[in-house]
Amino acid sequence: MNFYEELAERLKTGIRQGLYAPGQKVPSVRRYSAQQQASASTVVAAYRLLEAQGWLEAKPQSGYFVCLPDTLPPRATQTCEDAAPCQVSVSGLAVRLYQATQREGLISLGAAVPHPDLLPTRDLREATSRAMRRSPEASCRYSFPPGEKSLRLQIARRGAEAGCAFDPEEIQVTCGTQESIHLALRAITRPGDVVAIESPAFFGTLQAIESMGLQALEVPCDGDGISLEALAMALERWPVKAVLVVANFSNPSGSLMPDARKRQLVKMLAERDIPLIEDDIYGDLAHDRIRPHAVKAYDTTGNVLYCGSFSKTLAPGCRVGWLVPGRWGQEVSQLKYVSSMATATLPQLALSEYLASGRYERHLVRLRRTVESNLLRAQTLIARHFPHDTRVSRPQGGFLLWVQMPPDCDAMGLYQAAINEGISISPGPLFSPQEKFRNCFRLSVALPWDSRVENALIRLGELVGRTKVQS
Amino acid sequence: MNFYEELAERLKTGIRQGLYAPGQKVPSVRRYSAQQQASASTVVAAYRLLEAQGWLEAKPQSGYFVCLPDTLPPRATQTCEDAAPCQVSVSGLAVRLYQATQREGLISLGAAVPHPDLLPTRDLREATSRAMRRSPEASCRYSFPPGEKSLRLQIARRGAEAGCAFDPEEIQVTCGTQESIHLALRAITRPGDVVAIESPAFFGTLQAIESMGLQALEVPCDGDGISLEALAMALERWPVKAVLVVANFSNPSGSLMPDARKRQLVKMLAERDIPLIEDDIYGDLAHDRIRPHAVKAYDTTGNVLYCGSFSKTLAPGCRVGWLVPGRWGQEVSQLKYVSSMATATLPQLALSEYLASGRYERHLVRLRRTVESNLLRAQTLIARHFPHDTRVSRPQGGFLLWVQMPPDCDAMGLYQAAINEGISISPGPLFSPQEKFRNCFRLSVALPWDSRVENALIRLGELVGRTKVQS
Repeated sequence: MNFYEELAERLKTGIRQGLYAPGQKVPSVRRYSAQQQASASTVVAAYRLLEAQGWLEAKPQSGYFVCLPDTLPPRATQTCEDAAPCQVSVSGLAVRLYQATQREGLISLGAAVPHPDLLPTRDLREATSRAMRRSPEASCRYSFPPGEKSLRLQIARRGAEAGCAFDPEEIQVTCGTQESIHLALRAITRPGDVVAIESPAFFGTLQAIESMGLQALEVPCDGDGISLEALAMALERWPVKAVLVVANFSNPSGSLMPDARKRQLVKMLAERDIPLIEDDIYGDLAHDRIRPHAVKAYDTTGNVLYCGSFSKTLAPGCRVGWLVPGRWGQEVSQLKYVSSMATATLPQLALSEYLASGRYERHLVRLRRTVESNLLRAQTLIARHFPHDTRVSRPQGGFLLWVQMPPDCDAMGLYQAAINEGISISPGPLFSPQEKFRNCFRLSVALPWDSRVENALIRLGELVGRTKVQS
Repeated sequence: MNFYEELAERLKTGIRQGLYAPGQKVPSVRRYSAQQQASASTVVAAYRLLEAQGWLEAKPQSGYFVCLPDTLPPRATQTCEDAAPCQVSVSGLAVRLYQATQREGLISLGAAVPHPDLLPTRDLREATSRAMRRSPEASCRYSFPPGEKSLRLQIARRGAEAGCAFDPEEIQVTCGTQESIHLALRAITRPGDVVAIESPAFFGTLQAIESMGLQALEVPCDGDGISLEALAMALERWPVKAVLVVANFSNPSGSLMPDARKRQLVKMLAERDIPLIEDDIYGDLAHDRIRPHAVKAYDTTGNVLYCGSFSKTLAPGCRVGWLVPGRWGQEVSQLKYVSSMATATLPQLALSEYLASGRYERHLVRLRRTVESNLLRAQTLIARHFPHDTRVSRPQGGFLLWVQMPPDCDAMGLYQAAINEGISISPGPLFSPQEKFRNCFRLSVALPWDSRVENALIRLGELVGRTKVQS
């Protein structure tokens, strides 16, 4: 990293910590260069970088201002209502959403799919070629469960970043987190069982629950993730057989569960002998670069089934994820044979080569910076172009934004109007088996920012007004 | 193909048709060269090739003899008993079997896994590199269902060989046939439902049935596949919700269902509105090069769910198969999203490049020849070294041999004794939910033939004697 980039990072930290408040002027170039013992041109370069990334705004004759303006919409609130277990039926809508993302020319803010331009495509091609030279027969031999050893070693190393001490032998390579969650749910539940989930929850999880004939029980969340009080009450009242959470930068709310709550969650479920499935697919995307611990890090009894993947950070097309199944190793292994026999060999070896090259961390630094900056720009545009009482989430990681429009706005109507204009979003009802969140939607901003994206957000703001429900 | 290879093929056809019987002398070089208008040296080359492939045996001063000796064991008989639906529990044993195949230095005659030496590893690497050049971002973008269009086009072309007119749009790419069968079963059954299967049946299918809490109903087979009389009776008596068959070179019995029976099977099930799942994974491996029709070829109502794959003929490590789901297109598409979201992108593109290169047919010619020759050698060795009343199947395609030992022999004992000596086989009870076939086992011979394999078979014959059950 160049010195001016370091300076920029330092200033970002200051903004995050509240040292420089939204709308406030940052130190003048002269003052900051004196403060930081940097040349004026270095500080200018840093300020320009932050301007390009959407953190600062230059005002003629006045200097640079923090671009989290006071017009930034307030943080989205979470529901805190009580619920009963219920059947799920979101699959139809979810599939239509995915299919829409494949349309040529669509501005895709719907599915949580990182754009290839943000990913190290060249490095991955080179890693694939190296893997083919090293294992010339890769495409012609099965990689039976638990999967390629070299990759499991790399995954165990990544686990250490999340506070987990994985034995490579306990790691089951899968065809991505969707398969991991699927295997985990099948290993520990039977049709009709009740699974407690966050509210709102990722629709892929809801689809899995639906396809297995399970019942979903929505548990309210606050800004720190699932509410343990609400969960405790739910466990008293309903025969919950499993709990499923995304503790790190939850999908869609972006919330991050503090370590203390993670520890308490593990304890609470272990005492009741109810297994926890953790989906940690966004953990590597902490904006401040400090990778949060997994809930699994606090598991001493094997009660947590941990799901991870490279699909959101590195290589969606590889379809490689993993599952550390705790006490359910044998069940998960058998189910993996049954449901897909093995994971493709070459993609595993290519990822293992790439990870061994040490470039992943550097790539993550770039990716985090881009998605944080994109989130900021999106928040700013929403503040300017959406009804003034629109609220948005303030995720500290990942690339998803949860938008809560005024109560009389209809996300399904917005979704339809937007698709007609070539813009995709994920409407709120997708994230609830009871089709709550009718005035909410999710944006995914892991894409190269340009005027098309900006115009799409502005257009969304205009469309919102038209979707108001007559009350 | 050289002329001497053509001559060899012609003679093989003659042997298959019974023109030259087992143990009988083939025409002398002089006579055959006159007959075929070929030079003596060409005929010698052809005879030597057939000798190398195990079809002919040279006897000093006497000439060449057909190597299907009169000592060839009689054809394995199939069970024809009646059965009731039952729970399945073969997973534990099946997983141990797969795990055993991963042992270093094992002579692997157990799992039906083609050896990489028999597969076009170099061509596949080149196809992979071409695919990366053509789609530099392949690893970084999802290939959402139904999968890559270029591959679906190639699959539709292969379908024509099997007598099927597939629309590329109806083809769902999967992570291999195991996933195809899994998706098909999930689309059309609910836990507790009865599924009629062949007896013996592939244990991967039994595992899938087990994992979904379905009941299996074994239907007797004869040399032409599942008995339609027995199936009709079973359908009268039990509430069968689906039928699953491997009509072309069934696993493990190797039987081939004649076209007339295929047509009748489709009609019978369509009339009763019971869907048929067809697993056609071995169809491309017809020894006489005439690719048999799929049962699906006779389906006019969308009642057949057709499963295919490249795992047995081309690229097991790619984990690419397909499912043509008939009337259940929407259900299957949703389930694919739910269970694995997508199939890895680059392996799909690599296979599509390889298939477009036109090399697959040439590769199949070599592969069929090798596995047919290996089956012949295995049959010959079994005739010589196993108890004289041992019977084997006479498959016309594929690379699996079903061996029926005398009734007092125990395949589980043989399996254990063999594993201890570094040889794997698939014991008969794996192929039946009721653990029938205790005196049978399956051999897979898709591997380079050498003295280690030969000695392993001889050793198996010696071990059989020790496994006799005391009665």
